[in-house]
Amino acid sequence: MDKFELNILGCGSALPTSRFNPTSQVVNFREKLFLIDCGEGSQLQMRLNKLKMNRLGHIFLSHLHGDHCFGLMGFISTLGLLDRTADLVIHAHPDAERIFRPQLDYFCADLPFKVIFDNISPQKHALIYEERSLKVYSIPLKHRVPTCGYLFEEEAKERHINKEMAIFYKVPLRYFIALKEGLDFTTEDGEVIPNSRLTREPEPARKYAFCSDTAPSNSIIPIIEGVDLLYHEATFAETEVNRAKTTMHSTASQAAEIALKAQVKKLLIGHYSARYRDLSVLLNEAKAIFPNTYLSDETSTIEI
Amino acid sequence: MDKFELNILGCGSALPTSRFNPTSQVVNFREKLFLIDCGEGSQLQMRLNKLKMNRLGHIFLSHLHGDHCFGLMGFISTLGLLDRTADLVIHAHPDAERIFRPQLDYFCADLPFKVIFDNISPQKHALIYEERSLKVYSIPLKHRVPTCGYLFEEEAKERHINKEMAIFYKVPLRYFIALKEGLDFTTEDGEVIPNSRLTREPEPARKYAFCSDTAPSNSIIPIIEGVDLLYHEATFAETEVNRAKTTMHSTASQAAEIALKAQVKKLLIGHYSARYRDLSVLLNEAKAIFPNTYLSDETSTIEI
Repeated sequence: MDKFELNILGCGSALPTSRFNPTSQVVNFREKLFLIDCGEGSQLQMRLNKLKMNRLGHIFLSHLHGDHCFGLMGFISTLGLLDRTADLVIHAHPDAERIFRPQLDYFCADLPFKVIFDNISPQKHALIYEERSLKVYSIPLKHRVPTCGYLFEEEAKERHINKEMAIFYKVPLRYFIALKEGLDFTTEDGEVIPNSRLTREPEPARKYAFCSDTAPSNSIIPIIEGVDLLYHEATFAETEVNRAKTTMHSTASQAAEIALKAQVKKLLIGHYSARYRDLSVLLNEAKAIFPNTYLSDETSTIEI
Repeated sequence: MDKFELNILGCGSALPTSRFNPTSQVVNFREKLFLIDCGEGSQLQMRLNKLKMNRLGHIFLSHLHGDHCFGLMGFISTLGLLDRTADLVIHAHPDAERIFRPQLDYFCADLPFKVIFDNISPQKHALIYEERSLKVYSIPLKHRVPTCGYLFEEEAKERHINKEMAIFYKVPLRYFIALKEGLDFTTEDGEVIPNSRLTREPEPARKYAFCSDTAPSNSIIPIIEGVDLLYHEATFAETEVNRAKTTMHSTASQAAEIALKAQVKKLLIGHYSARYRDLSVLLNEAKAIFPNTYLSDETSTIEI
């Protein structure tokens, strides 16, 4: 199966601790890397995770709070030192360009590559990026500043040809494309061979949804429905539900309820408040509602 | 003896590695902390070194290259989360205010304390900061952008009174201040007791000089002469002397020659290029010229 993996570079929240870095993730899709958010230390975390910075062409920022973007300048500056020449695209709220462009001009005037800001509207669900086998959509979230998550969606795959049957019915090679697309085949004798006898179902197209930072929001459910993996922030335990509401974050139970309603396959929680030394309280509260929940950590790689 | 210590938070150069963070140091003077430079990750390094961020009131920036200041925004933002109320003063080239003020306004609009920029002229040797027992001076350096080092100088100490002798000669208590300042004492009988019989020499006032980034510069020698500890950058080994010249950095030998000419007591080298896996080449080249040389690392505390 083609590689489609998630690496968590940081799963802490605003106050960095010696245990968790601020938010940053890398999606590895067929060895092309995509960075989601870029908290302070992201470049170092990539290095520790042995991810090649130059394999990365796109950065997706969820919102412009420092714990999601203070690593950006160091990251870009280091890309310059690594003799990168390919363009780097930053998908973000238009303020990102306004804030970071003057810094780039000052600190990175001699970059050997172009930094292109793709100004997006976080409050709209839209196609943000597209390549041959992958689409990335924004997921409007509810936070104190304009914020969106991102849905990484693999292209629907082709059906697999059953070669023995294709030879048996003398399907010409030029018709294989039609077979993969699901068409039936008519033999020279006029017999219609149903596609299901000539092909097998493809692997389902995989989807990953990143949702942070956000208060629980039912309006994301149609967008993330049935995804293979949902990362949803779970900053607080249920005892801090009021604080979660004020700060427009989610509790672990609220994250689990979203996962349940959206019928996702697997839930990964993160963006832990620094107050939790023991994360099992968050995990247990989520699992009580959505059993297939996991804690994110900063060393493991998750297959999507 | 009063505490006067140096903590190295980062001793790498522009390209961060998993071994070394970019430049940042903390001077601990009687439990008041002073930050010199603030590369990415400085706040985390302070935490790992168990240094209390709120003990810090002044940040001294040597120059505005990213590896010396990309940690500043995260650092200040975290101070805000720690409910600091005391002013924070940043001593730096005037561009620092121009570059960082808009970021502070955007990302840290609700800081519970004031950030004050003290706009200094790196090319002048001047008194930058003064408090009861400590003075900090700038040290003009030679680099690609305006750069200065910093000299931390303890106030000259008072002489110690030899109490037995003071009682023997019936020196009145009110005269003790004069004794500490070195004055002789005249008894009621008119006998002049020389100060040296009534007091002992004080400990010498200690000095720490931070010099990074810089090409070797003889003009700093009168300023750093005889300091207890000199941190001098040593980015390259002698094989890279031309690269050092082009980039306006120093080799380990050049750092050692400065230490030798300035007759400092101890030399600490750092700002290692990422190319050196084994730092002994730098240490050996420096020691051949100035034997009392040490490599800085990011875990130890150095008494000044």
